[in-house]
Order: sequence, then structure tokens, then C-alpha cells
Amino acid sequence: MDFELRILGSSSATPSANRHHTAQVLTIDNQYHLIDCGEGTQMQLMQYKIKHQRICNIYISHLHGDHYFGLPGLLSTMHLQGRQSPLHLFGPPGLCEILSLQFRYSGTNLCFPLIFHELETTLHKKIFENKQMTVHTIPMEHRVPCCGFLFREKQKSRPLIKEKLPSFLTPPQLVRLKWGEDITDEQGHVLVYNKDVTMEPKRSRSYAYCSDSRYKPSLLPYLHRVDLLYHEATFADDLRERAEYTFHSTARQAAELATAAQVRYLLIGHFSVRYKDLTPLLHEARAVFARTDLATEGSIFSITA
Amino acid sequence: MDFELRILGSSSATPSANRHHTAQVLTIDNQYHLIDCGEGTQMQLMQYKIKHQRICNIYISHLHGDHYFGLPGLLSTMHLQGRQSPLHLFGPPGLCEILSLQFRYSGTNLCFPLIFHELETTLHKKIFENKQMTVHTIPMEHRVPCCGFLFREKQKSRPLIKEKLPSFLTPPQLVRLKWGEDITDEQGHVLVYNKDVTMEPKRSRSYAYCSDSRYKPSLLPYLHRVDLLYHEATFADDLRERAEYTFHSTARQAAELATAAQVRYLLIGHFSVRYKDLTPLLHEARAVFARTDLATEGSIFSITA
Repeated sequence: MDFELRILGSSSATPSANRHHTAQVLTIDNQYHLIDCGEGTQMQLMQYKIKHQRICNIYISHLHGDHYFGLPGLLSTMHLQGRQSPLHLFGPPGLCEILSLQFRYSGTNLCFPLIFHELETTLHKKIFENKQMTVHTIPMEHRVPCCGFLFREKQKSRPLIKEKLPSFLTPPQLVRLKWGEDITDEQGHVLVYNKDVTMEPKRSRSYAYCSDSRYKPSLLPYLHRVDLLYHEATFADDLRERAEYTFHSTARQAAELATAAQVRYLLIGHFSVRYKDLTPLLHEARAVFARTDLATEGSIFSITA
Repeated sequence: MDFELRILGSSSATPSANRHHTAQVLTIDNQYHLIDCGEGTQMQLMQYKIKHQRICNIYISHLHGDHYFGLPGLLSTMHLQGRQSPLHLFGPPGLCEILSLQFRYSGTNLCFPLIFHELETTLHKKIFENKQMTVHTIPMEHRVPCCGFLFREKQKSRPLIKEKLPSFLTPPQLVRLKWGEDITDEQGHVLVYNKDVTMEPKRSRSYAYCSDSRYKPSLLPYLHRVDLLYHEATFADDLRERAEYTFHSTARQAAELATAAQVRYLLIGHFSVRYKDLTPLLHEARAVFARTDLATEGSIFSITA
């Protein structure tokens, strides 16, 4: 099963000639999860040949324009191109009101079901679940209600070692073995030890998207040992006071969080337009946490199981 | 004085890989008038190195997203980059409500005066005037309230032929000569005939922007002899019924209007995404009205005085 992140935009606040507003596509098991949707996201999807028909869920972290001004246009295009499958939209209070007003004035009755899920941005709460994965909110600390998102594969079953399986096992017993149980008789005596006939399951992968936020060490429990952490790094650390004042973070702070949370990889993004060259931000973060990369337009990050 | 139109987008409804949503910049006397503002307009302005600080007025024809979804982002960028000069925004009912709601949820208090002028889209009415020019609405026939815009230079003064001016003329008399009057004595006898001492004034140029509309011959009086007419041409004429049904026009219909209105030049745009190659649309229009061009991204059209 694939678990792959594609970056569509890396710019904060105002776009620049080469940098677009925030949007990312996380592909899990061939389904697309769109995370934030800055202006021009539908053009970026075209640019990278990502079919918007395959987007199942859209997550909007907060209502600053650089994170959602591309959403009405994308939904309109889905409508005009005849989408039929339901779309789940997760966003903060106000988003549904804004879209409804826009669609009312444009006389648009969407031809597909748009199911809106209003987020409680101050909570760490499960907002989506299917067979493979869950999504939880991560409370951010920004100037308007804002949350990040934690995508986590569910625990995977233990592969059975066929040649070691006793022939008397029934199908229900095989299922129990897959989920880690030993097989016992009616008196509770162990007939088959799980560890003897199964292998370790594949790792359950995770991605934490930390959108706009002040440096917030209280996030650590949510980020603990995630495979991939995206954290905004609007400024370099010499502008730490400005970051604090504007409720943003520095590259160094993002790397400090990654270190403390013991994540595998860190991505930094949401760069201020003042940084024409992003190398200093990357070096600043890598000095603290070596496995850091820039979340720049078009980059792909795959997490292996 | 310059009178120049720059096309930023030519696509209808959904954008394509090479075509952007509708937006145009009309430069008159070094001031920028932005006409419609589809998604991505602020990036297109950057692309063509057009400084948004010099936009004085923005005109929105109607509230279909492909004509205004770039507006909130552009206004946000103007704000974040510290604009101070007032901006006049002309748009249909509902636009102010939508922007206000978006700015409320993003906690944005614009740092420049945004003066909203609500349009009566069914009228031909003067909505703006300065020393050089006027702007009138042109009522369109579309699925939602929609109007076009007629930009017209004011009549220019008659240049004086200095070597022919009698020396007894006073400054007020010179002004009267410039505006076409003869100079008479107190009894009404002509002392100086205007035609003897002045030249013909430079032409007053005009541009008519006809946004989304069904073919509407009743527009003719508003378009009569304009220098440059932009008219939407969403479809080729074999889809005339579809054009009628969706309240759009064909390339042939645009050219028929241009012929009947005796305009100097015609531009067609707002092309359906189905036309990868626009040559057939151009040929169809030119067969009726030879001085036709495509309003494609980046094109510049200058009108000489």
C-alpha cells in the first residue's frame, strides 16, 4: 500500500514567482487526501497530473486565505466536470458558511454530495476512519482557530507462516492468530503460541501535518515517533521574535520539535516570501535535526512500510 | 497617453494547463484598471511584471467563480504588502457580503480603504469618471446578474495653432477656443473662427468589455464604433444551441455583433476547455469580421489616439 506525500505549495501569506500557497496531497492506498488548498491548487494538481476525481477527503487547517482560497474553484471544477462520488470536507467553523454564500450567488447546486465536517480545532480528536487509517486533529496555536492533522495507518495484521500452521486450526482461529492472539483449549491451555506461527506485521505509518502555529512543545505527545512530520518554518531563527509575534515558527524550532518527538523525517515549509534562497533555512534545521528536507513544490516523499 | 489592454486569462469555467481564468488589465494614463479577477490573477500579474500597487479600480462582471475567485487573494496580498492608497471595487450585489465574511473569519482588517460600488447590472449607467475617462456598465444576459464595462476617454481639447493666434486673445478666450468655440465681440460678431486657429483633437478611444452573455443584439447602441470590443466566444458556431442554453455566445455571434456595431477591432475570449486549438474559433470569427484577434494570455493590444 502506498503512503506518499506530494507538495503542491510552500509559500506563506503571499505567493512568489516560483512558490505557491500551501496544499499537499497524501496518497494512502490509492486514495487522495488533500491537505489545505491555497489559491491555484487546481492548477497545481493539473501541473503534476494528479486527478482531482480521486480526492476523497479535503482537510482545511484554518481560514487564512493562503490555506483555502483555492477551495471554491476546485469544488466548482469538480462540479463542472460532473463528479458524482461524495467528497468529505473537514474544516473550521465558518468554512461551510463561506462556501454556501459563494455557491448561492453563483447559482451552483453541486452535482455531488459534499459532506462538511466542522472541526473543533482546540482538540486532539479522531475525525475520520476507514479500514486502513485514522485521521486526528492536532491543536495549533495561531491567530485564528487552526489545527493540524495526524494521519495514521491502523495496526496491521501479523502474516501467518503457512508451513508452521497446525492443520486443526479453524478459520476463526486463523483470524485470531493474525491479530496476535494465542490459541487455547477450553481449559485455557495454550495449543498454539502466536509467535511460533506468525511474523511481525508491517509497520503502521504516520504523517503529522503541523500547519501555521507558534512553537508549541505541548504538541509532543501527538507527534511522538511519527514517520514524517511537516512543520511550518515561516522564518529563520534570527526572526524568532517576529515568529512569536505573528504566531509562526522558525526552522530551528521545527527541528527542535522533531528531535524531541523522535520522528523519522522532518519537512519544513510555509516559507516567508523574503527568503529567495531556502538553503539557510534547511541548514538551520539540519544543524538540529539531520533528516530534514524542504517541502518545495513538486517534491514527493514516500514512507516505506 | 497610453491606452493598452493586457490579457491575463482566456479560459471559461475550468482552467486548463495553459489557460487561466478571466482577468484583464486596461492601462489608461499609467493607471491600471483590473477587469475581472479569476483564480490565480495575482500570479499572472507577477508573471507579466504588472505591479498590483498601481491598480486603482477593479471591476467584477458577475459572481461565477471563474471571474472573481482570485479577488480575495489579491486583496489579501495588497494588504500584506502594506498598500495604503484607496482601491475602488465595482461588483454585483453579494460581492461585498462574500468578501466581508471571508475577512471576518481570517481576522483581516484591510490596511487600505476598499471602496465598494454595488452595480446595477441591468442598466447602462456611468459608474466611474475622472479627468480623462468614464466607465459605464453594459447589461449582459447571463445565468446570474452580469454586466460588461465600457471604458471611454473623454473628448479631448483642440490643439491651438500658435502661429495663427491673434495677439489680443485673453487666456479665457484661449480655453474657449480649445473646447471648440468661436470668439465673438459683445455684439456677437465673430472675431476669430475656431477652425482657423485650432486643429482636430486627438481621437477619444474606447474599449468595451462584454463578459459572459448570450448573443444580445440589443447591445449594439452601447458598442457603436468602439475602438476595441472584447466579446466572449465560449463556443464555435456548431454549438450555437449549447451557447444559447448556457447563456454564452459563439465566435461567429461575437463577430456579427462587431460587424453590426462597426467597431475597429474585435477580441474573442472565454474559450471552452474543449478547444485545445483556438484556430477554428479565430477563423470562424474572421470569416465575418476580419479584424479579430484571440484574447490569449499575455497578449497586449494598444489603441493609438
